[in-house]
Amino acid sequence: MNISGHTALIPHIGYPTGSFKAPMIYNPWFEAHGVDAVVVPMGVPAEAGAIALPVIFAFTNFHGALITMPHKVSVVSMLDEVSKAVQVAGACNAVRRMPDGRLVGDQFDGAGFVRGVLRKGQRVEGARALVCGTGGVGSAIAASLAGAGVGALALYDVDSVSMDRLARRLADVYPRIAVTTGSNDPQGFDIVVNATPLGMKPGDPLPLDVTRLAPETFVGEVVMKQETTPFLAAARARGCRTQIGVDMLFEMIPAYLDFFGFGEATAEELRALARVSY
Amino acid sequence: MNISGHTALIPHIGYPTGSFKAPMIYNPWFEAHGVDAVVVPMGVPAEAGAIALPVIFAFTNFHGALITMPHKVSVVSMLDEVSKAVQVAGACNAVRRMPDGRLVGDQFDGAGFVRGVLRKGQRVEGARALVCGTGGVGSAIAASLAGAGVGALALYDVDSVSMDRLARRLADVYPRIAVTTGSNDPQGFDIVVNATPLGMKPGDPLPLDVTRLAPETFVGEVVMKQETTPFLAAARARGCRTQIGVDMLFEMIPAYLDFFGFGEATAEELRALARVSY
Repeated sequence: MNISGHTALIPHIGYPTGSFKAPMIYNPWFEAHGVDAVVVPMGVPAEAGAIALPVIFAFTNFHGALITMPHKVSVVSMLDEVSKAVQVAGACNAVRRMPDGRLVGDQFDGAGFVRGVLRKGQRVEGARALVCGTGGVGSAIAASLAGAGVGALALYDVDSVSMDRLARRLADVYPRIAVTTGSNDPQGFDIVVNATPLGMKPGDPLPLDVTRLAPETFVGEVVMKQETTPFLAAARARGCRTQIGVDMLFEMIPAYLDFFGFGEATAEELRALARVSY
Repeated sequence: MNISGHTALIPHIGYPTGSFKAPMIYNPWFEAHGVDAVVVPMGVPAEAGAIALPVIFAFTNFHGALITMPHKVSVVSMLDEVSKAVQVAGACNAVRRMPDGRLVGDQFDGAGFVRGVLRKGQRVEGARALVCGTGGVGSAIAASLAGAGVGALALYDVDSVSMDRLARRLADVYPRIAVTTGSNDPQGFDIVVNATPLGMKPGDPLPLDVTRLAPETFVGEVVMKQETTPFLAAARARGCRTQIGVDMLFEMIPAYLDFFGFGEATAEELRALARVSY
Protein backbone atom coordinates (compact mmCIF):
# COMPACT_ATOMS: atom_id res chain seq x y z
CA MET A 1 0.00 0.00 0.00
CA ASN A 2 1.49 3.28 -1.11
CA ILE A 3 -0.92 6.06 -0.20
CA SER A 4 -0.52 9.15 -2.34
CA GLY A 5 -2.49 12.20 -3.30
CA HIS A 6 -3.95 10.19 -6.19
CA THR A 7 -5.22 7.36 -3.98
CA ALA A 8 -9.01 7.00 -3.86
CA LEU A 9 -9.91 7.94 -0.29
CA ILE A 10 -12.68 5.95 1.37
CA PRO A 11 -13.33 7.38 4.81
CA HIS A 12 -14.87 4.95 7.27
CA ILE A 13 -16.99 7.32 9.32
CA GLY A 14 -18.37 6.53 12.76
CA TYR A 15 -17.68 6.59 16.46
CA PRO A 16 -16.07 5.02 18.35
CA THR A 17 -13.51 3.80 15.83
CA GLY A 18 -11.85 1.20 18.06
CA SER A 19 -14.09 -1.64 16.87
CA PHE A 20 -13.84 -0.86 13.14
CA LYS A 21 -12.96 -3.92 11.08
CA ALA A 22 -13.49 -2.68 7.52
CA PRO A 23 -9.99 -1.16 7.07
CA MET A 24 -8.37 -4.52 7.87
CA ILE A 25 -10.61 -6.25 5.33
CA TYR A 26 -10.73 -3.79 2.44
CA ASN A 27 -7.13 -2.55 2.51
CA PRO A 28 -5.47 -5.98 2.21
CA TRP A 29 -7.75 -6.73 -0.74
CA PHE A 30 -6.83 -3.41 -2.38
CA GLU A 31 -3.14 -4.25 -1.91
CA ALA A 32 -3.52 -7.76 -3.28
CA HIS A 33 -5.30 -6.46 -6.37
CA GLY A 34 -3.19 -3.34 -6.95
CA VAL A 35 -6.18 -1.06 -6.41
CA ASP A 36 -5.03 2.45 -5.49
CA ALA A 37 -7.62 3.03 -2.77
CA VAL A 38 -7.56 3.13 1.02
CA VAL A 39 -10.17 2.84 3.77
CA VAL A 40 -9.34 5.27 6.59
CA PRO A 41 -11.25 5.49 9.90
CA MET A 42 -12.48 8.98 10.79
CA GLY A 43 -13.97 9.19 14.26
CA VAL A 44 -16.98 11.51 14.20
CA PRO A 45 -19.32 11.55 17.23
CA ALA A 46 -23.08 11.84 16.68
CA GLU A 47 -23.38 15.55 17.41
CA ALA A 48 -20.61 16.41 14.92
CA GLY A 49 -22.09 14.50 11.99
CA ALA A 50 -24.27 17.19 10.46
CA ILE A 51 -21.26 19.42 9.85
CA ALA A 52 -18.51 16.81 9.49
CA LEU A 53 -20.01 14.42 6.94
CA PRO A 54 -20.57 17.04 4.21
CA VAL A 55 -17.01 18.29 4.81
CA ILE A 56 -15.63 14.78 4.34
CA PHE A 57 -17.76 14.14 1.25
CA ALA A 58 -16.24 17.31 -0.27
CA PHE A 59 -12.56 16.27 0.06
CA THR A 60 -11.21 16.52 -3.48
CA ASN A 61 -9.70 13.01 -3.21
CA PHE A 62 -12.95 11.56 -1.76
CA HIS A 63 -14.08 8.49 -3.68
CA GLY A 64 -16.83 7.19 -1.43
CA ALA A 65 -17.43 6.42 2.23
CA LEU A 66 -18.37 3.63 4.56
CA ILE A 67 -20.86 4.89 7.12
CA THR A 68 -21.40 3.26 10.45
CA MET A 69 -22.96 4.13 13.79
CA PRO A 70 -24.04 6.75 14.77
CA HIS A 71 -24.49 8.20 11.25
CA LYS A 72 -26.20 5.40 9.28
CA VAL A 73 -29.64 6.97 9.60
CA SER A 74 -28.82 10.68 9.63
CA VAL A 75 -26.65 10.42 6.49
CA VAL A 76 -29.67 9.46 4.36
CA SER A 77 -30.97 13.04 4.25
CA MET A 78 -27.56 14.33 3.09
CA LEU A 79 -27.59 12.33 -0.17
CA ASP A 80 -28.91 13.09 -3.64
CA GLU A 81 -30.11 9.58 -4.34
CA VAL A 82 -30.59 6.40 -2.31
CA SER A 83 -31.36 2.79 -3.21
CA LYS A 84 -34.57 0.93 -2.42
CA ALA A 85 -32.74 -0.97 0.33
CA VAL A 86 -31.86 2.34 1.97
CA GLN A 87 -35.43 3.57 1.62
CA VAL A 88 -36.87 0.50 3.31
CA ALA A 89 -34.21 0.09 5.96
CA GLY A 90 -34.01 3.81 6.61
CA ALA A 91 -30.24 3.53 6.91
CA CYS A 92 -27.26 3.87 4.59
CA ASN A 93 -23.82 2.27 4.95
CA ALA A 94 -22.09 3.37 1.79
CA VAL A 95 -21.85 6.61 -0.14
CA ARG A 96 -20.31 7.14 -3.52
CA ARG A 97 -19.62 10.42 -5.24
CA MET A 98 -20.50 10.07 -8.89
CA PRO A 99 -18.50 11.76 -11.67
CA ASP A 100 -21.16 14.49 -11.85
CA GLY A 101 -20.79 15.17 -8.11
CA ARG A 102 -24.04 13.56 -6.98
CA LEU A 103 -23.86 11.62 -3.71
CA VAL A 104 -25.50 8.20 -3.99
CA GLY A 105 -26.24 6.00 -0.99
CA ASP A 106 -26.75 2.27 -0.72
CA GLN A 107 -26.40 -0.49 1.81
CA PHE A 108 -25.64 -4.16 1.58
CA ASP A 109 -25.69 -5.45 5.17
CA GLY A 110 -28.94 -7.25 4.57
CA ALA A 111 -27.80 -8.46 1.17
CA GLY A 112 -24.76 -10.01 2.86
CA PHE A 113 -26.97 -11.83 5.33
CA VAL A 114 -29.27 -13.19 2.63
CA ARG A 115 -26.39 -14.17 0.36
CA GLY A 116 -24.80 -16.13 3.20
CA VAL A 117 -28.07 -17.88 4.05
CA LEU A 118 -28.64 -18.84 0.41
CA ARG A 119 -25.09 -20.12 0.03
CA LYS A 120 -25.68 -22.38 3.04
CA GLY A 121 -28.56 -24.00 1.18
CA GLN A 122 -31.43 -22.39 3.05
CA ARG A 123 -34.38 -21.41 0.85
CA VAL A 124 -35.48 -17.76 1.31
CA GLU A 125 -38.22 -17.34 -1.30
CA GLY A 126 -41.58 -18.04 0.27
CA ALA A 127 -39.99 -18.72 3.68
CA ARG A 128 -41.27 -17.47 7.02
CA ALA A 129 -38.70 -15.28 8.78
CA LEU A 130 -38.41 -13.71 12.24
CA VAL A 131 -36.11 -10.71 12.68
CA CYS A 132 -35.38 -9.83 16.32
CA GLY A 133 -34.08 -6.29 16.51
CA THR A 134 -35.26 -3.57 14.15
CA GLY A 135 -32.38 -1.14 14.47
CA GLY A 136 -30.02 -0.45 11.58
CA VAL A 137 -28.86 -3.98 10.86
CA GLY A 138 -32.24 -5.62 11.62
CA SER A 139 -33.98 -3.21 9.29
CA ALA A 140 -31.41 -3.94 6.59
CA ILE A 141 -31.86 -7.69 6.96
CA ALA A 142 -35.65 -7.39 6.92
CA ALA A 143 -35.48 -5.25 3.78
CA SER A 144 -33.23 -7.77 2.03
CA LEU A 145 -35.32 -10.76 3.11
CA ALA A 146 -38.36 -8.97 1.69
CA GLY A 147 -36.47 -8.19 -1.50
CA ALA A 148 -35.49 -11.87 -1.74
CA GLY A 149 -39.15 -12.92 -1.61
CA VAL A 150 -39.93 -14.22 1.88
CA GLY A 151 -43.60 -15.09 2.30
CA ALA A 152 -44.00 -13.85 5.86
CA LEU A 153 -41.90 -11.56 7.99
CA ALA A 154 -42.21 -11.13 11.76
CA LEU A 155 -40.48 -8.24 13.46
CA TYR A 156 -39.68 -7.83 17.12
CA ASP A 157 -37.99 -5.10 19.12
CA VAL A 158 -38.33 -3.72 22.64
CA ASP A 159 -38.39 -0.33 20.87
CA SER A 160 -41.89 -0.54 19.41
CA VAL A 161 -41.48 2.77 17.58
CA SER A 162 -38.62 1.44 15.47
CA MET A 163 -40.44 -1.89 15.02
CA ASP A 164 -43.68 -0.32 13.82
CA ARG A 165 -41.88 2.14 11.55
CA LEU A 166 -40.07 -0.69 9.79
CA ALA A 167 -43.33 -2.67 9.49
CA ARG A 168 -44.99 0.29 7.80
CA ARG A 169 -42.15 0.79 5.33
CA LEU A 170 -42.17 -2.90 4.46
CA ALA A 171 -45.95 -2.90 3.99
CA ASP A 172 -45.67 0.12 1.71
CA VAL A 173 -42.98 -1.37 -0.53
CA TYR A 174 -43.87 -5.07 -0.30
CA PRO A 175 -47.67 -5.18 0.20
CA ARG A 176 -47.90 -8.89 -0.61
CA ILE A 177 -45.69 -9.98 2.29
CA ALA A 178 -47.48 -10.74 5.56
CA VAL A 179 -45.69 -8.51 8.09
CA THR A 180 -46.43 -9.04 11.78
CA THR A 181 -44.93 -7.42 14.85
CA GLY A 182 -44.66 -7.80 18.59
CA SER A 183 -43.63 -11.39 19.21
CA ASN A 184 -40.17 -12.95 19.40
CA ASP A 185 -41.52 -16.50 19.61
CA PRO A 186 -39.44 -18.42 17.03
CA GLN A 187 -41.83 -21.35 16.71
CA GLY A 188 -42.95 -22.00 13.14
CA PHE A 189 -40.30 -19.93 11.39
CA ASP A 190 -37.91 -21.16 8.70
CA ILE A 191 -35.37 -18.41 9.37
CA VAL A 192 -34.73 -16.64 12.67
CA VAL A 193 -32.12 -13.94 13.11
CA ASN A 194 -30.78 -12.08 16.11
CA ALA A 195 -30.23 -8.51 14.97
CA THR A 196 -30.17 -7.10 18.49
CA PRO A 197 -26.93 -6.25 20.33
CA LEU A 198 -27.64 -9.04 22.83
CA GLY A 199 -24.53 -11.19 22.95
CA MET A 200 -22.11 -8.28 22.79
CA LYS A 201 -21.61 -8.25 26.58
CA PRO A 202 -21.02 -11.19 28.90
CA GLY A 203 -24.18 -12.02 30.79
CA ASP A 204 -26.55 -10.60 28.17
CA PRO A 205 -29.88 -12.44 28.12
CA LEU A 206 -30.65 -14.46 24.97
CA PRO A 207 -32.69 -12.48 22.39
CA LEU A 208 -35.52 -15.05 22.40
CA ASP A 209 -36.71 -18.29 23.98
CA VAL A 210 -34.44 -20.88 22.37
CA THR A 211 -36.49 -23.77 23.79
CA ARG A 212 -39.12 -22.81 21.19
CA LEU A 213 -36.65 -23.27 18.28
CA ALA A 214 -37.30 -26.24 16.00
CA PRO A 215 -34.27 -28.14 14.61
CA GLU A 216 -35.42 -27.29 11.05
CA THR A 217 -35.12 -23.56 11.69
CA PHE A 218 -32.12 -21.77 10.20
CA VAL A 219 -30.65 -19.36 12.79
CA GLY A 220 -28.60 -16.30 11.98
CA GLU A 221 -26.65 -13.92 14.18
CA VAL A 222 -25.27 -10.42 13.63
CA VAL A 223 -23.12 -10.11 16.75
CA MET A 224 -19.43 -10.55 15.85
CA LYS A 225 -17.91 -10.09 19.29
CA GLN A 226 -17.35 -13.83 19.43
CA GLU A 227 -17.76 -16.39 16.66
CA THR A 228 -20.18 -18.59 18.61
CA THR A 229 -22.44 -16.40 20.69
CA PRO A 230 -24.47 -18.00 23.51
CA PHE A 231 -27.51 -17.65 21.23
CA LEU A 232 -25.85 -19.56 18.37
CA ALA A 233 -24.54 -22.19 20.80
CA ALA A 234 -28.08 -22.72 22.11
CA ALA A 235 -29.49 -22.92 18.57
CA ARG A 236 -26.87 -25.50 17.57
CA ALA A 237 -27.67 -27.51 20.69
CA ARG A 238 -31.25 -27.60 19.41
CA GLY A 239 -29.98 -29.00 16.09
CA CYS A 240 -30.37 -25.81 14.05
CA ARG A 241 -28.13 -24.83 11.16
CA THR A 242 -26.58 -21.42 11.84
CA GLN A 243 -24.81 -18.44 10.31
CA ILE A 244 -22.27 -16.49 12.38
CA GLY A 245 -22.04 -12.71 12.32
CA VAL A 246 -18.71 -12.69 10.53
CA ASP A 247 -20.15 -14.69 7.61
CA MET A 248 -22.63 -11.92 6.99
CA LEU A 249 -19.79 -9.40 7.16
CA PHE A 250 -17.64 -11.09 4.53
CA GLU A 251 -20.60 -11.93 2.28
CA MET A 252 -21.59 -8.27 2.07
CA ILE A 253 -18.17 -6.89 1.17
CA PRO A 254 -18.12 -7.98 -2.50
CA ALA A 255 -21.33 -5.97 -2.92
CA TYR A 256 -19.68 -2.88 -1.41
CA LEU A 257 -16.56 -3.28 -3.57
CA ASP A 258 -18.77 -3.52 -6.64
CA PHE A 259 -20.70 -0.41 -5.53
CA PHE A 260 -17.42 1.51 -5.24
CA GLY A 261 -16.41 0.37 -8.71
CA PHE A 262 -13.46 -1.83 -7.70
CA GLY A 263 -14.49 -5.02 -9.46
CA GLU A 264 -15.34 -8.51 -8.33
CA ALA A 265 -14.30 -10.10 -5.07
CA THR A 266 -15.23 -13.25 -3.19
CA ALA A 267 -16.03 -13.62 0.49
CA GLU A 268 -13.48 -16.43 0.73
CA GLU A 269 -10.60 -14.37 -0.64
CA LEU A 270 -11.54 -11.36 1.47
CA ARG A 271 -11.57 -13.52 4.57
CA ALA A 272 -8.23 -15.14 3.70
CA LEU A 273 -6.60 -11.73 3.18
CA ALA A 274 -8.17 -9.95 6.15
CA ARG A 275 -5.77 -8.79 8.85
CA VAL A 276 -8.29 -9.16 11.63
CA SER A 277 -9.25 -12.09 13.81
CA TYR A 278 -12.55 -12.87 15.48
CA MET B 1 0.78 -1.05 7.42
CA ASN B 2 -2.42 -2.23 9.02
CA ILE B 3 -4.71 0.76 9.42
CA SER B 4 -7.27 0.31 12.19
CA GLY B 5 -9.54 2.44 14.34
CA HIS B 6 -6.66 2.73 16.81
CA THR B 7 -4.16 4.06 14.26
CA ALA B 8 -2.98 7.62 14.87
CA LEU B 9 -4.46 9.58 11.96
CA ILE B 10 -2.29 12.33 10.47
CA PRO B 11 -4.26 14.11 7.76
CA HIS B 12 -2.14 15.82 5.15
CA ILE B 13 -4.36 18.78 4.31
CA GLY B 14 -4.06 20.87 1.19
CA TYR B 15 -5.06 21.22 -2.43
CA PRO B 16 -4.37 19.92 -4.97
CA THR B 17 -3.22 16.62 -3.48
CA GLY B 18 -1.61 15.20 -6.63
CA SER B 19 1.85 16.55 -5.80
CA PHE B 20 1.86 15.46 -2.13
CA LYS B 21 5.03 13.59 -1.21
CA ALA B 22 4.76 13.33 2.58
CA PRO B 23 2.62 10.14 2.64
CA MET B 24 5.27 8.26 0.64
CA ILE B 25 7.97 9.43 3.05
CA TYR B 26 6.29 9.17 6.46
CA ASN B 27 4.28 5.97 5.94
CA PRO B 28 7.23 3.75 4.94
CA TRP B 29 9.11 5.01 8.02
CA PHE B 30 6.09 4.24 10.24
CA GLU B 31 5.96 0.74 8.77
CA ALA B 32 9.69 0.16 9.20
CA HIS B 33 9.51 1.23 12.85
CA GLY B 34 6.20 -0.41 13.76
CA VAL B 35 4.60 2.95 14.50
CA ASP B 36 0.79 2.68 14.32
CA ALA B 37 0.23 5.95 12.48
CA VAL B 38 -0.68 6.92 8.94
CA VAL B 39 -0.43 10.08 6.85
CA VAL B 40 -3.53 10.45 4.67
CA PRO B 41 -4.03 13.17 2.04
CA MET B 42 -7.25 15.14 2.40
CA GLY B 43 -7.91 17.52 -0.47
CA VAL B 44 -9.40 20.76 0.85
CA PRO B 45 -9.57 23.78 -1.47
CA ALA B 46 -8.89 27.26 -0.05
CA GLU B 47 -12.52 28.33 0.30
CA ALA B 48 -13.42 25.18 2.28
CA GLY B 49 -10.62 25.49 4.83
CA ALA B 50 -12.36 27.61 7.46
CA ILE B 51 -15.01 24.96 7.97
CA ALA B 52 -13.09 21.82 7.02
CA LEU B 53 -9.92 22.17 9.09
CA PRO B 54 -11.69 22.41 12.49
CA VAL B 55 -13.80 19.38 11.48
CA ILE B 56 -10.67 17.37 10.68
CA PHE B 57 -8.91 18.47 13.87
CA ALA B 58 -11.93 17.13 15.81
CA PHE B 59 -11.85 13.57 14.43
CA THR B 60 -11.61 11.38 17.53
CA ASN B 61 -8.67 9.45 16.01
CA PHE B 62 -6.89 12.67 14.97
CA HIS B 63 -3.28 12.74 16.19
CA GLY B 64 -1.93 15.73 14.32
CA ALA B 65 -1.87 17.15 10.81
CA LEU B 66 0.50 18.21 8.09
CA ILE B 67 -0.70 21.46 6.57
CA THR B 68 0.25 22.62 3.13
CA MET B 69 -0.98 25.11 0.55
CA PRO B 70 -3.44 26.81 0.58
CA HIS B 71 -3.94 26.55 4.37
CA LYS B 72 -0.47 27.18 5.85
CA VAL B 73 -1.24 30.79 6.72
CA SER B 74 -4.97 30.62 7.51
CA VAL B 75 -4.53 27.69 9.90
CA VAL B 76 -2.48 29.84 12.30
CA SER B 77 -5.56 31.61 13.65
CA MET B 78 -7.30 28.27 14.34
CA LEU B 79 -4.69 27.12 16.85
CA ASP B 80 -4.37 27.55 20.61
CA GLU B 81 -0.60 27.94 20.59
CA VAL B 82 2.08 28.43 17.93
CA SER B 83 5.88 28.33 18.00
CA LYS B 84 8.19 31.28 17.50
CA ALA B 85 8.99 29.97 13.99
CA VAL B 86 5.28 30.13 13.13
CA GLN B 87 4.98 33.61 14.58
CA VAL B 88 7.87 34.94 12.51
CA ALA B 89 7.10 33.05 9.32
CA GLY B 90 3.35 33.62 9.65
CA ALA B 91 2.72 30.09 8.45
CA CYS B 92 2.26 26.70 10.07
CA ASN B 93 2.92 23.28 8.56
CA ALA B 94 2.17 20.95 11.43
CA VAL B 95 -0.55 20.75 14.06
CA ARG B 96 -0.65 18.47 17.04
CA ARG B 97 -3.55 17.89 19.36
CA MET B 98 -2.22 17.68 22.90
CA PRO B 99 -3.68 15.32 25.51
CA ASP B 100 -5.66 18.24 26.99
CA GLY B 101 -7.18 18.99 23.57
CA ARG B 102 -5.15 22.13 22.81
CA LEU B 103 -4.07 22.51 19.19
CA VAL B 104 -0.39 23.43 18.89
CA GLY B 105 1.21 24.57 15.64
CA ASP B 106 4.80 24.53 14.51
CA GLN B 107 6.81 24.43 11.33
CA PHE B 108 10.17 23.04 10.42
CA ASP B 109 10.64 23.85 6.72
CA GLY B 110 13.20 26.49 7.55
CA ALA B 111 14.81 24.27 10.17
CA GLY B 112 15.26 21.60 7.49
CA PHE B 113 16.97 24.09 5.19
CA VAL B 114 19.33 25.33 7.91
CA ARG B 115 20.11 21.82 9.14
CA GLY B 116 21.01 20.75 5.61
CA VAL B 117 23.23 23.80 5.10
CA LEU B 118 25.04 23.21 8.40
CA ARG B 119 25.55 19.52 7.62
CA LYS B 120 27.20 20.55 4.35
CA GLY B 121 29.77 22.50 6.34
CA GLN B 122 28.47 25.99 5.64
CA ARG B 123 28.65 28.36 8.61
CA VAL B 124 25.35 30.11 9.37
CA GLU B 125 26.08 32.06 12.54
CA GLY B 126 27.16 35.57 11.64
CA ALA B 127 26.75 34.88 7.90
CA ARG B 128 25.16 37.22 5.38
CA ALA B 129 22.14 35.60 3.69
CA LEU B 130 19.86 36.53 0.79
CA VAL B 131 16.41 34.95 0.62
CA CYS B 132 14.64 35.37 -2.74
CA GLY B 133 10.94 34.75 -2.29
CA THR B 134 9.09 35.69 0.90
CA GLY B 135 6.06 33.42 0.59
CA GLY B 136 5.50 30.52 2.95
CA VAL B 137 8.75 28.66 2.44
CA GLY B 138 10.89 31.79 2.08
CA SER B 139 9.49 33.21 5.30
CA ALA B 140 10.16 29.92 7.04
CA ILE B 141 13.77 29.84 5.83
CA ALA B 142 14.33 33.48 6.79
CA ALA B 143 12.93 32.80 10.26
CA SER B 144 15.19 29.80 10.75
CA LEU B 145 18.26 31.59 9.43
CA ALA B 146 17.52 34.38 11.91
CA GLY B 147 17.04 31.84 14.69
CA ALA B 148 20.37 30.25 13.76
CA GLY B 149 22.14 33.59 14.18
CA VAL B 150 22.83 35.07 10.74
CA GLY B 151 24.39 38.51 10.94
CA ALA B 152 22.56 40.07 8.00
CA LEU B 153 19.47 39.03 6.11
CA ALA B 154 18.35 40.41 2.75
CA LEU B 155 14.85 39.71 1.50
CA TYR B 156 13.52 39.99 -2.01
CA ASP B 157 10.14 39.37 -3.56
CA VAL B 158 8.17 40.88 -6.45
CA ASP B 159 5.31 40.99 -3.88
CA SER B 160 6.58 43.89 -1.78
CA VAL B 161 3.72 43.55 0.71
CA SER B 162 4.79 40.04 1.71
CA MET B 163 8.46 41.11 1.67
CA ASP B 164 7.92 44.12 3.93
CA ARG B 165 5.67 42.20 6.31
CA LEU B 166 8.33 39.54 6.82
CA ALA B 167 10.99 42.22 7.30
CA ARG B 168 8.90 43.85 10.05
CA ARG B 169 8.30 40.54 11.84
CA LEU B 170 12.01 39.74 11.71
CA ALA B 171 12.94 43.18 13.01
CA ASP B 172 10.47 42.78 15.88
CA VAL B 173 11.76 39.40 17.00
CA TYR B 174 15.44 39.71 16.02
CA PRO B 175 16.26 43.43 16.38
CA ARG B 176 20.02 42.83 16.25
CA ILE B 177 19.98 41.35 12.74
CA ALA B 178 20.42 43.80 9.87
CA VAL B 179 17.39 43.16 7.67
CA THR B 180 17.27 44.75 4.24
CA THR B 181 14.77 44.44 1.40
CA GLY B 182 14.29 45.12 -2.27
CA SER B 183 17.37 43.74 -4.02
CA ASN B 184 18.07 40.27 -5.36
CA ASP B 185 21.69 41.01 -6.18
CA PRO B 186 23.61 38.04 -4.71
CA GLN B 187 26.97 39.75 -4.60
CA GLY B 188 28.60 39.74 -1.18
CA PHE B 189 26.39 37.08 0.42
CA ASP B 190 27.58 33.88 2.09
CA ILE B 191 24.27 32.10 1.60
CA VAL B 192 21.76 32.67 -1.21
CA VAL B 193 18.51 30.74 -1.50
CA ASN B 194 15.83 30.58 -4.15
CA ALA B 195 12.54 30.32 -2.27
CA THR B 196 10.44 31.44 -5.25
CA PRO B 197 8.53 29.02 -7.48
CA LEU B 198 10.82 29.93 -10.39
CA GLY B 199 12.17 26.64 -11.76
CA MET B 200 8.88 24.78 -11.39
CA LYS B 201 7.98 25.35 -15.06
CA PRO B 202 10.16 24.91 -18.12
CA GLY B 203 11.27 28.30 -19.42
CA ASP B 204 10.98 30.08 -16.07
CA PRO B 205 13.48 32.92 -15.75
CA LEU B 206 16.21 32.48 -13.13
CA PRO B 207 15.34 34.04 -9.75
CA LEU B 208 18.40 36.29 -9.76
CA ASP B 209 21.42 37.34 -11.81
CA VAL B 210 23.74 34.33 -11.47
CA THR B 211 26.65 36.21 -13.07
CA ARG B 212 26.85 38.14 -9.79
CA LEU B 213 27.34 34.93 -7.73
CA ALA B 214 30.78 34.44 -6.22
CA PRO B 215 32.17 30.88 -6.07
CA GLU B 216 32.38 31.14 -2.26
CA THR B 217 28.64 31.65 -1.96
CA PHE B 218 26.58 28.68 -0.79
CA VAL B 219 23.43 28.39 -2.92
CA GLY B 220 20.21 26.69 -1.83
CA GLU B 221 17.06 25.83 -3.73
CA VAL B 222 13.52 24.94 -2.61
CA VAL B 223 12.12 23.79 -5.98
CA MET B 224 11.88 19.98 -6.05
CA LYS B 225 10.40 19.53 -9.51
CA GLN B 226 13.81 18.45 -10.73
CA GLU B 227 16.89 17.68 -8.69
CA THR B 228 19.13 20.12 -10.55
CA THR B 229 17.14 23.20 -11.44
CA PRO B 230 18.53 25.63 -14.03
CA PHE B 231 19.35 27.97 -11.12
CA LEU B 232 21.38 25.29 -9.30
CA ALA B 233 23.10 24.29 -12.54
CA ALA B 234 24.11 27.90 -13.12
CA ALA B 235 25.36 28.25 -9.53
CA ARG B 236 27.43 25.09 -9.84
CA ALA B 237 28.87 26.38 -13.11
CA ARG B 238 30.02 29.41 -11.12
CA GLY B 239 31.75 27.06 -8.65
CA CYS B 240 29.24 27.40 -5.82
CA ARG B 241 28.40 24.66 -3.34
CA THR B 242 24.67 23.92 -3.47
CA GLN B 243 21.75 22.31 -1.65
CA ILE B 244 18.90 20.77 -3.67
CA GLY B 245 15.24 21.14 -2.70
CA VAL B 246 14.85 17.50 -1.75
CA ASP B 247 17.69 17.76 0.79
CA MET B 248 15.72 20.40 2.65
CA LEU B 249 12.66 18.15 2.52
CA PHE B 250 14.34 15.12 4.08
CA GLU B 251 16.29 17.20 6.60
CA MET B 252 13.06 18.67 7.99
CA ILE B 253 11.19 15.41 8.46
CA PRO B 254 13.00 14.20 11.58
CA ALA B 255 11.89 17.44 13.22
CA TYR B 256 8.26 16.80 12.26
CA LEU B 257 8.41 13.20 13.50
CA ASP B 258 9.80 14.44 16.80
CA PHE B 259 7.05 17.08 17.01
CA PHE B 260 4.42 14.35 16.53
CA GLY B 261 6.03 12.28 19.28
CA PHE B 262 7.23 9.39 17.10
CA GLY B 263 10.88 9.38 18.12
CA GLU B 264 14.16 9.92 16.34
CA ALA B 265 14.73 9.54 12.61
CA THR B 266 17.52 10.43 10.23
CA ALA B 267 17.25 12.10 6.85
CA GLU B 268 19.31 9.27 5.33
CA GLU B 269 16.99 6.50 6.54
CA LEU B 270 13.89 8.45 5.54
CA ARG B 271 15.29 8.96 2.08
CA ALA B 272 16.25 5.29 1.73
CA LEU B 273 12.77 4.15 2.76
CA ALA B 274 10.78 6.73 0.78
CA ARG B 275 8.55 5.36 -1.98
CA VAL B 276 8.88 8.44 -4.14
CA SER B 277 11.42 9.45 -6.72
CA TYR B 278 12.59 12.89 -7.78
